Order: sequence, then structure tokens, then C-alpha cells
Amino acid sequence: MRATLMYGIGDVRIENVPEPTILKPTDAILRLSATCVCGSDLWPYRGLDGISWPLAMGHEYVGIVEEVGSEVTTIKPGQFVIGSFMPSDNTCEICQAGYPSSCVHGEELGAEGAQAELLRVPLADGTLVATPDVPTADLIPSLLAASDVLGTGWFGAVAAQAGPGKTVVVVGDGAVGLLGILAARQLGADRVIAMSRHEPRQRLAREFGATDIVEERGDAGVERIKELTDGLGAHSVIEAVGTHESMMQAMRSTRPGGHVGFVGVAHGVQLAGMDLFFSQVHLHGGPAPVRRFLPELIDLIWNRDIDPGKVFDLELPLDQVGAGYRAMDQRVAIKTLLRP
Amino acid sequence: MRATLMYGIGDVRIENVPEPTILKPTDAILRLSATCVCGSDLWPYRGLDGISWPLAMGHEYVGIVEEVGSEVTTIKPGQFVIGSFMPSDNTCEICQAGYPSSCVHGEELGAEGAQAELLRVPLADGTLVATPDVPTADLIPSLLAASDVLGTGWFGAVAAQAGPGKTVVVVGDGAVGLLGILAARQLGADRVIAMSRHEPRQRLAREFGATDIVEERGDAGVERIKELTDGLGAHSVIEAVGTHESMMQAMRSTRPGGHVGFVGVAHGVQLAGMDLFFSQVHLHGGPAPVRRFLPELIDLIWNRDIDPGKVFDLELPLDQVGAGYRAMDQRVAIKTLLRP
Repeated sequence: MRATLMYGIGDVRIENVPEPTILKPTDAILRLSATCVCGSDLWPYRGLDGISWPLAMGHEYVGIVEEVGSEVTTIKPGQFVIGSFMPSDNTCEICQAGYPSSCVHGEELGAEGAQAELLRVPLADGTLVATPDVPTADLIPSLLAASDVLGTGWFGAVAAQAGPGKTVVVVGDGAVGLLGILAARQLGADRVIAMSRHEPRQRLAREFGATDIVEERGDAGVERIKELTDGLGAHSVIEAVGTHESMMQAMRSTRPGGHVGFVGVAHGVQLAGMDLFFSQVHLHGGPAPVRRFLPELIDLIWNRDIDPGKVFDLELPLDQVGAGYRAMDQRVAIKTLLRP
Repeated sequence: MRATLMYGIGDVRIENVPEPTILKPTDAILRLSATCVCGSDLWPYRGLDGISWPLAMGHEYVGIVEEVGSEVTTIKPGQFVIGSFMPSDNTCEICQAGYPSSCVHGEELGAEGAQAELLRVPLADGTLVATPDVPTADLIPSLLAASDVLGTGWFGAVAAQAGPGKTVVVVGDGAVGLLGILAARQLGADRVIAMSRHEPRQRLAREFGATDIVEERGDAGVERIKELTDGLGAHSVIEAVGTHESMMQAMRSTRPGGHVGFVGVAHGVQLAGMDLFFSQVHLHGGPAPVRRFLPELIDLIWNRDIDPGKVFDLELPLDQVGAGYRAMDQRVAIKTLLRP
């Protein structure tokens, strides 16, 4: 089958690899209906230390169950399913407490990666959630978004305690940040301030419910947020970039006692204890426990209450995955959907 | 009047200084019934960069109101009062949200410091809480503890979300850590594990409700906590030291999704973003919003439900303040109460 391998900085190729097979009785094999390129895939694409090439790419997926292992009981061949990028048994104490992305028995997705035709998903009963039926084509982008970026933006908003009466700031206008805006509004936030300086992304931010746009960054950005919040800072801030600058932007935009939800993978972030101490903010984040939110998110999508699939502004056949990476790297596209 | 000045490392003296006077119409002057030495007073005593000597010392106090400014309406001369070390108006939006230690109109305690006979307290109506009556002598140590260490330990426990069904770890066996144990039990925690290797402090920890003692530190300490918590780590961890090692001890002892409440003043703490990201803990702390808790804490003390004054294991006349510092520096005393 065809799968995506990264051979070095900027070098993404489609290759023929062996089809995945059931390795453990709790596995399932999916035939993917759609997959996509993640902002986090750009970290190795742009160069990161300590990688052993080639890398099999992709961790976002929706598709039809093709085969299940002998111990899989709830997931059946023929079902259309969505799963998190971090397989979990959904029964351990940590999963039950809402943190499946730290599942005690967590396993990794099949080594072939999800930017491929088929994918092995471990712990199928815990990881996968089936839709009520096979969805119509127009729902597929939104369901695919639930596999990571929507669930991650949602976690950012929950971790930042976005809700009624709150002013929420979103740092980062990638797919996760944009869906953090959608999540904050769904959770009832009165006001959502998007920090963005890119016109097409500002437009989508407003479509997802942003009430204000702030183009400034750094000290000027913090000052602008303070101006918009009676000098206090926001109640809730979603950090959706993952750099030291964006984390500082987030912390400094939050009022004392407020909440920062950080979901950008924290590359090179160093927090000085005294800054954190005197900021008095709540800090919570990490790899999003997407599985926790999937049933609710699928419902919202199925009922057409939300349309997170709008973040896909480029759709390509899997064979053109390289062009999909390039467009995101050059910020020509927000997010690329791939059809295997 | 007599007040305490620090002239350099290890050099604490009683000197005669001018009596404080009302500077703003919202001030009050207290005649102190008792004051004490704080663990944080040991930071300059042991040497910290960038200090301009001499330093006026002390920020914990209880006493009788001697005089109030013209705009003070609720606090009256003759009342016995307790206040936080961080004056606050108790009416601004940040105070009302529970963070008086970041009050928008916050001022500093009188420059004479609280290890003195008299103290000027700004924002008297917001900062001070009067007891139902002038207390009997035996209640004074506990009421004094409420001014900082009890309120700070309490905040640590609240920030760590100690409560029913929770296993709580307390890192640090100073007065704040010990009172964090008391707070965690009062808040309903099932199990409280004290990390301590000092026998007298272990005894007090058990008296305050610790169910387990762990003497190990570092990797061995983390391993021991994991053994005691089904391999998962604690739900709630109170960090009450303020060093990089203690913060790491706290974070690594917490399960994914758990809560770290940090109240040690974070000297030299540097958090790597990736460690925080993959730990998935909640992190909250800072200068304790003691004023938030004072009415509840005074009630508990007044009704003799708690006896936090037990942390004072040395009582000296103010004139012997130097001996009080020495005993705490050498860990001969947990906390020194001073009688002006």
C-alpha cells in the first residue's frame, strides 16, 4: 500500500510499504477515508534534532474498519470510526479520570503512520468511536478534524476554563488555535480575542466566533489585551503554538487567578519559577486527551452544530502529500486534507 | 519603638525606630500582640543577590487596633485583628475573584516591618479581619499562624485540589508544609503523605493528620510515592519549599491530570516546557491569597477545631529575635513566635 515517509528536512515521499496486519488481539485495521497533515508534522519537516530518518508520517485518521483482532468486542468491521492519535484502553484509572493521552496501557499507532491507505490502531475498543452510520461525504472533513485538531483546540479551551462570563484569548491562528476559538464559543465564552495577523485566518477566526482580533505581538500584544480587559488580562488563554514566545504571550495575557490552557507542543519553552509564581495563573496542558471529548464532538458534528472541517482549505490526493506539506510550511494553506 | 533590621547575612538586630503614623486615610496602626519569623525571612538571612541593607523584617502579625485613618469604616480602635502579609482592598475584581494577593490597588505593609511593636497596615478595611472578641492568650499563636503560614498552606492545598477521595503529597516539612497537611485533612483528603526526614517534624506532621511519611527524596522519593499510589502518582501535591529540586519532586510525584499547588517562593526554578507538557499536571500557586481564607480560618481556630499554633516550637521576647532566626536557620526550631 502507499504510505508517507519523510527522508529529511522538506523531503516527504509516497512509497509502497507492506500492508499493516493485526499484531495484537486488541488491534483493528482501518481503510482510511481521509487523513491530513498536522502542524506538528512541520516540526521535523523544518528540522529538529535527534531524528532518525526516514519517519513514517501521520496520526490523524477516519475510516472504515476492515478487520479486528480476536479480543475486540465493540468495534466491528464495516463501521466508520474516528480515533485519537494516542491509543488508550479507556478503562484504566487515568483514562477514567479524563486523561486517555496518558493511559497506563497506552500504545502507539501503527508504525506505517496515518498518511497512508491502511492503518493499524491498537486498543481498538478503547481508542475508536463509531459514528451512528457511514457519514455523507460532506461530514468527513469535520469528523477527521475531531481526530486531533478539534479535540486539541477543545482541550485547550477546557484547560483554560473557557465558559460563560469569560473573556478568552487565543494565541496562535493555526488549525488548533482556530478550533480553540470554536470550542471557547461552544463552551459559552462571551468574548473570544484571536491573536492573528493573517487575513484569511482572521476571517475564519470570525466565522468560528472570534469577537475581536489583535494583530500585535509581544509587549504590544499584551498591552492591547490589557486594554480590552479593563487592564486585568483575560480570564482564559489558549496557547496553540508551542514556542517560548507564544507561552510568554499567553501567560502575560492572563489575569491573576486566570487559566492558561497550553496545547502547542512546547519546543524550547523555559519557564522561570518567579514569573510563574507572581503571575498567579493556572497552567494546564499537554497532549490533548482527545478520546475524552470524541463522543460529544461527533454528536455536534453529526447534528451539524459545528463545522470544524472548514480548517481544511486544501484537499489533495495522498499521492500529492509533498505539495500538501509545502503549502502548510509556506502558510499558503491552513491545513491539508489527503484522500488515500 | 523597637523593630527588627537585618544588616547582612546572619546579622539581625533590634533597633529603636520612629513609631509608624497614619500616612493615608485608609491606614490603621496596630499594637502587635505577637509576630514571628517566616521561612522566607531566611532567604536574605542566608544570602540573596541584590539586597540593599538594612532590611526591615517581618510580615506576619496579630494585634489591637490603636488608630485608624479617616476613611476606615469597618475596623475600629480596640479590635483584635489579623491581616494578610499582602494588603488588599478586598473589593476590586481580582480580590472578588479570590486573588487579593494580586489586588489591583494592593499596597505594601508599613516599612517598619512586622517584627516590631507597632505596624502600619494599609487598606485596613480590606486587609484586616477582626476576631469576635479579644482572644484568650492560648489562641494567639494559632491566630498569628493564620496571617501567613496557615493561609499559605491552605492555599497550597486548595490549589492542589485536596479533597475527599484524594491522595495528597506534601513536599517540605517547614511550617507551611506542615500546615498544608492540616489543610488537606480539613478539606477532606483521605490520605496525606508527608515527605520529611526530621523526626520532630514527622511527629507534628502525624499530629496534623499525615497518614504516611516518606523519607526518600529525588528519584527514590518519586518511586516511593508511585509505590504508595498504584504506580500512578498522587492526585494532589503541595510544594512548600521553593527550590528547583522541590518543584521537580512535586511535579514528578503527581499523576497525569493531577494538581500541583506550589507555595514555596520559587528561587532558581526553571521548568522545561516539554516536562510540563508531558506531565499533564495542573500547576497553580504563587503568593497566597490569604485574605480569601481568613474568615473561615479564624472560625476554625475560634471554635478550636484546628490548632495551627503548634508550629511555633520556640517563643521569645522580641528583643531576642536574633536567637529566633538562628534556631530556624539551624533547623532547631520549626518557627519562632516573638512577643513585642
